[in-house]
Amino acid sequence: MIKAGIVGGTGYTGAELLRLLAVHPEVEVTVITSRKEAGKPVSELYPGLRGKMDIAYSQPDDDVLATCDLVFFATPNGIAMNSVPKLLEKGVKVVDLAADFRLSNAEDWKQWYGIDHACPEMLAEAVYGLPEMNREQIQSAQLVANPGCYPTAAQLGLLPLMEKGLVEGNIIIDAKSGVSGAGREAKVASLLCEVSESFKAYGVPGHRHLPEIRQGLGRMAVNTAGAFGGELVFVPHLVPMIRGIHATSYVSVKDHSIDLQALYENRFRDEPFVDVLPAGSHPETRSVKSCNQCRLSVHRPQGGDTVVILSVIDNLVKGAAGQAIQNMNIMCGLNETAGLEAPALMP
Amino acid sequence: MIKAGIVGGTGYTGAELLRLLAVHPEVEVTVITSRKEAGKPVSELYPGLRGKMDIAYSQPDDDVLATCDLVFFATPNGIAMNSVPKLLEKGVKVVDLAADFRLSNAEDWKQWYGIDHACPEMLAEAVYGLPEMNREQIQSAQLVANPGCYPTAAQLGLLPLMEKGLVEGNIIIDAKSGVSGAGREAKVASLLCEVSESFKAYGVPGHRHLPEIRQGLGRMAVNTAGAFGGELVFVPHLVPMIRGIHATSYVSVKDHSIDLQALYENRFRDEPFVDVLPAGSHPETRSVKSCNQCRLSVHRPQGGDTVVILSVIDNLVKGAAGQAIQNMNIMCGLNETAGLEAPALMP
Amino acid sequence: MIKAGIVGGTGYTGAELLRLLAVHPEVEVTVITSRKEAGKPVSELYPGLRGKMDIAYSQPDDDVLATCDLVFFATPNGIAMNSVPKLLEKGVKVVDLAADFRLSNAEDWKQWYGIDHACPEMLAEAVYGLPEMNREQIQSAQLVANPGCYPTAAQLGLLPLMEKGLVEGNIIIDAKSGVSGAGREAKVASLLCEVSESFKAYGVPGHRHLPEIRQGLGRMAVNTAGAFGGELVFVPHLVPMIRGIHATSYVSVKDHSIDLQALYENRFRDEPFVDVLPAGSHPETRSVKSCNQCRLSVHRPQGGDTVVILSVIDNLVKGAAGQAIQNMNIMCGLNETAGLEAPALMP
Amino acid sequence: MIKAGIVGGTGYTGAELLRLLAVHPEVEVTVITSRKEAGKPVSELYPGLRGKMDIAYSQPDDDVLATCDLVFFATPNGIAMNSVPKLLEKGVKVVDLAADFRLSNAEDWKQWYGIDHACPEMLAEAVYGLPEMNREQIQSAQLVANPGCYPTAAQLGLLPLMEKGLVEGNIIIDAKSGVSGAGREAKVASLLCEVSESFKAYGVPGHRHLPEIRQGLGRMAVNTAGAFGGELVFVPHLVPMIRGIHATSYVSVKDHSIDLQALYENRFRDEPFVDVLPAGSHPETRSVKSCNQCRLSVHRPQGGDTVVILSVIDNLVKGAAGQAIQNMNIMCGLNETAGLEAPALMP
Repeated sequence: MIKAGIVGGTGYTGAELLRLLAVHPEVEVTVITSRKEAGKPVSELYPGLRGKMDIAYSQPDDDVLATCDLVFFATPNGIAMNSVPKLLEKGVKVVDLAADFRLSNAEDWKQWYGIDHACPEMLAEAVYGLPEMNREQIQSAQLVANPGCYPTAAQLGLLPLMEKGLVEGNIIIDAKSGVSGAGREAKVASLLCEVSESFKAYGVPGHRHLPEIRQGLGRMAVNTAGAFGGELVFVPHLVPMIRGIHATSYVSVKDHSIDLQALYENRFRDEPFVDVLPAGSHPETRSVKSCNQCRLSVHRPQGGDTVVILSVIDNLVKGAAGQAIQNMNIMCGLNETAGLEAPALMP
Repeated sequence: MIKAGIVGGTGYTGAELLRLLAVHPEVEVTVITSRKEAGKPVSELYPGLRGKMDIAYSQPDDDVLATCDLVFFATPNGIAMNSVPKLLEKGVKVVDLAADFRLSNAEDWKQWYGIDHACPEMLAEAVYGLPEMNREQIQSAQLVANPGCYPTAAQLGLLPLMEKGLVEGNIIIDAKSGVSGAGREAKVASLLCEVSESFKAYGVPGHRHLPEIRQGLGRMAVNTAGAFGGELVFVPHLVPMIRGIHATSYVSVKDHSIDLQALYENRFRDEPFVDVLPAGSHPETRSVKSCNQCRLSVHRPQGGDTVVILSVIDNLVKGAAGQAIQNMNIMCGLNETAGLEAPALMP
Repeated sequence: MIKAGIVGGTGYTGAELLRLLAVHPEVEVTVITSRKEAGKPVSELYPGLRGKMDIAYSQPDDDVLATCDLVFFATPNGIAMNSVPKLLEKGVKVVDLAADFRLSNAEDWKQWYGIDHACPEMLAEAVYGLPEMNREQIQSAQLVANPGCYPTAAQLGLLPLMEKGLVEGNIIIDAKSGVSGAGREAKVASLLCEVSESFKAYGVPGHRHLPEIRQGLGRMAVNTAGAFGGELVFVPHLVPMIRGIHATSYVSVKDHSIDLQALYENRFRDEPFVDVLPAGSHPETRSVKSCNQCRLSVHRPQGGDTVVILSVIDNLVKGAAGQAIQNMNIMCGLNETAGLEAPALMP
Repeated sequence: MIKAGIVGGTGYTGAELLRLLAVHPEVEVTVITSRKEAGKPVSELYPGLRGKMDIAYSQPDDDVLATCDLVFFATPNGIAMNSVPKLLEKGVKVVDLAADFRLSNAEDWKQWYGIDHACPEMLAEAVYGLPEMNREQIQSAQLVANPGCYPTAAQLGLLPLMEKGLVEGNIIIDAKSGVSGAGREAKVASLLCEVSESFKAYGVPGHRHLPEIRQGLGRMAVNTAGAFGGELVFVPHLVPMIRGIHATSYVSVKDHSIDLQALYENRFRDEPFVDVLPAGSHPETRSVKSCNQCRLSVHRPQGGDTVVILSVIDNLVKGAAGQAIQNMNIMCGLNETAGLEAPALMP
């Protein structure tokens, strides 16, 4: 059994790790930390775990964490970078669900997250944990930066086109997320009475997932002649629901000889967690609720140059905890789908 | 592997059977029928099952169903009673998720369901599938009548008090259900625009689950001196959410020497799917979302005679498909919790 | 034009006063206070008011408030009692939407609200602002205690029976409220991800609206022989929706010669804001969304002794701001329905 | 008093007309028709209207309708075109809330709506009822085609840029609507259990509002040198809420010398129902819930060429019944805002 630790396990991504790991056949959660809730059983915060996960929160302690084979950081941005170097030294593997190791450039980090990076020298070592792009590097990685929720949905949707260098001009990503993406923090803006029965955009001037997506798309296009040079516009919106992300991506593909459906199906044929829907489909976020799947479809409306890609994930699963477990499975040599087989919850 | 069949698998309880059986370690779904959708893969109706359950609906055919070890009927009321006798003859076990075999009295059936019963002689043979009451009979049953959703929540909440004959006077059950209880039928009354952002009672003059609850409470009290003789009032309400039932039950317990908390904890200590919360708790329906648990708490407000029991289930799981699988596990000699171990989905 | 002031206008009841008064033909809001938001236009917090209500929050100032004809307190409990005496002295009328003047007994106040009352001598002077009970006293009142949301729904539902002394034994009020009843405070328990898609009871051991309801029912029964002496059990629940209260009340009426429907219709025939639905009806909370109506129906299920009353209101309108304006209209000699004529918002 | 008739008043737009006209100071609804519900009071279908609108549905009858000053058609597409010519002949004014008279080209109608137009000769006469574009023509019109919900939100957002010929290249409109846009028809796809807690795109290959938007944008640009010649891509999405439309429009404006905020504020300064938010704002759909307002903001993210316009309306008000009443006000010489002054419902 793999011994797993979770740092900062009181938020929704931490709780989701617990839910999924509770039935993972080869992993045992041996430690979960929370400064604020230390001493309290996890099932007191999350009664749904009663009888399924009988562990209590403890104070963060590097020596205790060092007894784990792998540690997940489900902390706010800017926390993991202070502890990760010590854990790596002790041979512990790390998956960081926050943004600390997502951007390879420390200056980008500072610009978008507002503080100096605590260990810029590790940025080169960290592997960006999108298995559909980087599976081989993840296999041998000791430190994996788990992608953001929006970037996961957007990048998977654009991957086949970017790799082939088919995109010309600007890329527009109009993305929509359920409210759990805003976390479990007590704030007026996330109250039911403030967000239900309403819809809005936010962060139009600039959202932190923009540089992460730009970096990812750039890497996809690196081997193509037409490396992406247009504008990248990313507009996130808040949907009155708990879980789910829907990315609607607009690109111009002037080569009409491409069979887009075949391109997508071939690219993802062997991917256990990416499902290309039949031509003409419109994926619903509920078709991936509670599971690690990404479902997508590709359209060329009215036969024009503009191609529209629709991709959906559960932001807490493929967009966070599920992808983190997928990465753990790869890093630890387990079956990649272990613990992630349950179908979506419908309705 | 147990070969399981599902008759009428297009509704929500049928889909829930598929979701749960998709990861059941000892069961294989070999046939699923639907007159209307015959030929269509189940994943076309329920894309969340893509890659998890690769079976298609077929026309109902008794010979094909007879190849199963056990058949679930997830049909509307009044359908199963026409086919069950033939299947039983052929040695197939049956769990009926509809109401056909819940009432032991054929006249009650006719009064509440409006048609003559097709096989009244089988009513005595059918076992009422509430394992917490009838586990032993279920073990040897060939035909199990899976309880209604409201009756499951209400009866589990009252069981410890009724068995001991502690209840005096009337019993009031004020119950609340999510909208999935109304099924997947196209009707104006179940449209999002008609039921979201609203709350209402329905069926106050008389609801079909009333005689089922009355019968169950009567059986619980059968060995007590004070067999229940008061009024039973049952008022269901519709909650603007997909899943969940909350029963708030009010009874008079004039004996104040009883330690209610201990009574409940002792009664359910060995029940894998009933969880008595600590004294003073208020169970939330989301603490059982997607899982087979019933959680409950017992209160004596202001130290009066009135005892209030709060009990919650997921109407599609412990209130339907999950309990059906629990019954199947018992009938087939499997581990009772097989396939039902996943924790609740939160948030 | 009546000059109205609002103290503490940043919460939902304050905002609702603004929404309704913005189109009241005979009232002008001349001052609205908030320590925290002083200087900010109300439309910055509530963009729905842009162009409709061009006033800014100001620091609370008794001299400024004294320029008003009437002041609404939309403050948390325990605030109004410190300022009201001064305003009354200056001849200003007051409607307090909080609980400060609802209980006539200062010891009850202390027991349920945890602090000494600042002006117990005024409790006798304050009129309980349920117009359907106390219209005449409200006409000449200078200080009106606006009823709580649950008490409004529950008391209107029971009024005809209590006045006639028809109720025997216990009274059970199973009440359900939308989330706006919890206010606009930043707390985890009111986040969309915590309350949507879930349902729960709360406050079963004792809720502050219990003594208010008990006091009200006692007053209704004061002229009857059988003044109410049974237990009063009140269990509130949280519904995943923004607005609305549904009270389901259970009482025993052993006299079966009473025509309940006629009793209710006669009692409320002249009440502009109470609507008795046809026999057999089930009122929905959405039928009163955004308007000052109470709709109710009365049932005697299965012809038993137990009578079930279903009553619905919008907790922010008839349960708070709308009833406050109704009281203002009565106190100021305006048409009682002025500014409150708009129908419910459906869907 | 204007005598108004409503044809087909059982759906959500019909009900919304009733809600708004119930408090319109200068209009009386004298007839409302429904083949299916003839004889039934409107308040039986919509209990929120009890006591506010005491009219019953009647069978459609041209002679009765001819007694009205103005008739609203709230019918499905393809109905009004059969009756309108007769009413116009009799001097009755007509506002059609369906699509019958929106496209000026009868062939476009046939292509998108699948049937021949019954009175193509009237298409030239009908005025497209977007008052912000066509106020003068509406004043003298006898027949007004009320715009679609998506087209209203999208066109108002793009109007200032299109009129000035500032847009180069493609236009992408990513639009999101609440579920009431799908109407009150009994269909599985609109059930709460199918659409709540989910989000999806639909109609990507081609939606009927696409030609309407294209026609409108073309007319706006007609006086500019750079009349719009790029691709128009329109992708609608379904949001799990009752009311509201949010259009996110992406265009390329290469001239960076333009002060976009000033352009928008100046263009809409005198428009009573268009509200340009301060720079940097993100309008929420709830800020226009139940009212006739359009609120919008304009962004140039990261200082690039791409301009993003966010515009919100209530699909049943400014997107349907409210705009129809606004058009009626203009056609009948009433104050344009009569009956439309109430602020948004929040929360």
